[in-house]
Amino acid sequence: MELREWQSILVPYKYAVEELKVKFKNIRNELAENGEYAPIEFVTGRVKKISSIIDKAKRLDIDLSEIDEKIEDIAGIRIMCQFVEDIYTVVSYIRSRKDMTVLYEKDYIKNNKETGYRSYHIIIKYPIQTVAGTKEILAEVQIRTLSMNFWATIEHSLRYKYNDYLPSDISDRLKKAGDAAFNLDQEMSEIREEIVRAQVMFEMKSIT
Amino acid sequence: MELREWQSILVPYKYAVEELKVKFKNIRNELAENGEYAPIEFVTGRVKKISSIIDKAKRLDIDLSEIDEKIEDIAGIRIMCQFVEDIYTVVSYIRSRKDMTVLYEKDYIKNNKETGYRSYHIIIKYPIQTVAGTKEILAEVQIRTLSMNFWATIEHSLRYKYNDYLPSDISDRLKKAGDAAFNLDQEMSEIREEIVRAQVMFEMKSIT
Amino acid sequence: MELREWQSILVPYKYAVEELKVKFKNIRNELAENGEYAPIEFVTGRVKKISSIIDKAKRLDIDLSEIDEKIEDIAGIRIMCQFVEDIYTVVSYIRSRKDMTVLYEKDYIKNNKETGYRSYHIIIKYPIQTVAGTKEILAEVQIRTLSMNFWATIEHSLRYKYNDYLPSDISDRLKKAGDAAFNLDQEMSEIREEIVRAQVMFEMKSIT
Amino acid sequence: MELREWQSILVPYKYAVEELKVKFKNIRNELAENGEYAPIEFVTGRVKKISSIIDKAKRLDIDLSEIDEKIEDIAGIRIMCQFVEDIYTVVSYIRSRKDMTVLYEKDYIKNNKETGYRSYHIIIKYPIQTVAGTKEILAEVQIRTLSMNFWATIEHSLRYKYNDYLPSDISDRLKKAGDAAFNLDQEMSEIREEIVRAQVMFEMKSIT
Repeated sequence: MELREWQSILVPYKYAVEELKVKFKNIRNELAENGEYAPIEFVTGRVKKISSIIDKAKRLDIDLSEIDEKIEDIAGIRIMCQFVEDIYTVVSYIRSRKDMTVLYEKDYIKNNKETGYRSYHIIIKYPIQTVAGTKEILAEVQIRTLSMNFWATIEHSLRYKYNDYLPSDISDRLKKAGDAAFNLDQEMSEIREEIVRAQVMFEMKSIT
Repeated sequence: MELREWQSILVPYKYAVEELKVKFKNIRNELAENGEYAPIEFVTGRVKKISSIIDKAKRLDIDLSEIDEKIEDIAGIRIMCQFVEDIYTVVSYIRSRKDMTVLYEKDYIKNNKETGYRSYHIIIKYPIQTVAGTKEILAEVQIRTLSMNFWATIEHSLRYKYNDYLPSDISDRLKKAGDAAFNLDQEMSEIREEIVRAQVMFEMKSIT
Repeated sequence: MELREWQSILVPYKYAVEELKVKFKNIRNELAENGEYAPIEFVTGRVKKISSIIDKAKRLDIDLSEIDEKIEDIAGIRIMCQFVEDIYTVVSYIRSRKDMTVLYEKDYIKNNKETGYRSYHIIIKYPIQTVAGTKEILAEVQIRTLSMNFWATIEHSLRYKYNDYLPSDISDRLKKAGDAAFNLDQEMSEIREEIVRAQVMFEMKSIT
Repeated sequence: MELREWQSILVPYKYAVEELKVKFKNIRNELAENGEYAPIEFVTGRVKKISSIIDKAKRLDIDLSEIDEKIEDIAGIRIMCQFVEDIYTVVSYIRSRKDMTVLYEKDYIKNNKETGYRSYHIIIKYPIQTVAGTKEILAEVQIRTLSMNFWATIEHSLRYKYNDYLPSDISDRLKKAGDAAFNLDQEMSEIREEIVRAQVMFEMKSIT
């Protein structure tokens, strides 16, 4: 495919990412402005790079005419939470929305990957209005704590560097860092109840 | 009502304005990125000020419990076009979207107001997903050329200053400026066909 | 030059444009927030496209090693005003700033070009802090009314289409549109004093 | 002081925060676009709330006429880094800039506070161009890792809730979370060299 063709395929994904970012940020804002605890710290989004789409299509033996249906993370949203518990609250919000449909979910927190990767993934179908009409887009929403995200970013860079074959010393180090990240999440959960109550008070004072 | 109560009423309007701005801007971007002529110059939006809502409710004898159904411009979007012809293209795009419903339209261009005001208004119903569920919001979309907008901004300021009673010399001046704005729009329409063809070529060269 | 080399040359220009946009927008905001009349409607900026830089360098016989000193509009800022009078106020603000140096000015309003082009240009020198140290950048600031801008955009597209040789009928039409734009500016100036007083009142009521 | 007076005092701080955010973000972008490792993850900024300024002035017995010189964090910038080592790189960048002056520095990482608080603070003097002329502003730049920031946010909420008197069980829990955060930073530093090399490669591939 030509660059121009790619651009025109990716345009609706780009707008889906923009709309979804606004919508998830506004869950946060709505709660904060009403003086309630907001389980979302921040939200990022991206459209997959053309080169990564091609790589993935090759790896999974997907024809380029089928990428719309078979590659689920061309549009990607990442939602960062302070606490592990918040992740499940965000999941329940997503399930109850009428402007997107949950296709399926993968809980890599309760069932974490062998690599140590922890995160909650939701694949959604999201309708985009284009000048030519409605287009249904697949998007992947990843929900994580800040320390899960910290670890995953680093793991991704390393795995990229070593083409998926991490030397065992690096792999051990990464495992230790993963444990430290997990440990921080646990300590945080312990004081969570206290904090949730404290933050609501804080937000309310801040607004007035 | 308390400030806090107002804030919580206005929150969904604020998010509606944000979402709608993203969506209308993306009509523009979609066309531009595909190398087609985009009939939208820029898009702005605002939530009506609390004091203006109260004023309007008083003036129209609307109870504050009914403002959601009876005041249509709490959420306001303004779309600016280069040419009068573009306005009707934008109107047709809005009518064909599945994520909003057109309630009714007012064409103050073909039937312009006595004051000289020209603009196209569409009242839409737009669903917003809040944490508590779906909420249907009314919003007013105003579509104008740049010179209609220029004139309207000034007329609004003057009318505000004189509490709606413009002295006749000011009123005459304003009428003359309105004619000059109308004249500019007409001259522009005359060379429009040329320009539309020229701009598509320009955009296409710019992208590559 | 390779794309990568170009990117690294253009990076400081990109940051200059971002900083200058923030700074000029804040002139507007500062005045508006203090309840004073703001002579700036809006501000845009862009870095010149690589292909346009190469074209200009060829046309003016500039070696690519000299573009930093000899092409003055790689960083370009455009400031839009409601009234012709506002342009001169903005010029005086720019002259008095300590964070940029005015190199020279071209007043295409008092001395408008044969083509009908009207605008005020200021070439400034602006220091950018990079990781490698301070870099002095040239930038062109164009100050215009909305109708000057409207006309110039269209003229630019047409001139582009016809490779600078406008057929005489198009050229006549464009001249007429230019007159209509000039006429609108004049009518606006006539009611300006009234409007300035009206808008200050308006802004002040809006803030409180 | 009246709200309006406060607003006019705070306006230059607001613009300082905006300009500084753009500038620090661009350190990151400049390095990333040149394919080098960027020691900055993200940058946030805020102007201190009026109520907090009044509280601090009272607590430190500062007259409201002196807040400009005596309260150093009315303009606050926070720079988040992946690794502890990155913090010192950012510090060296700030010291070498010509558009701000470092007044003094506080290293709460090497000399961390009794409470467990870790962060690097720099107080700078930054010139802002207002319509009335140049104004020198004090600003506080806090540089932290993500886990330092995570901990500090929570500590701040708790301290706020208990009016600075944390019950000993909460205080113990917080200490444990602080240790977990510190531990995560240390594990990360251990694999840092590997990661830095990996990320440069990654960024470079991403650009091309």
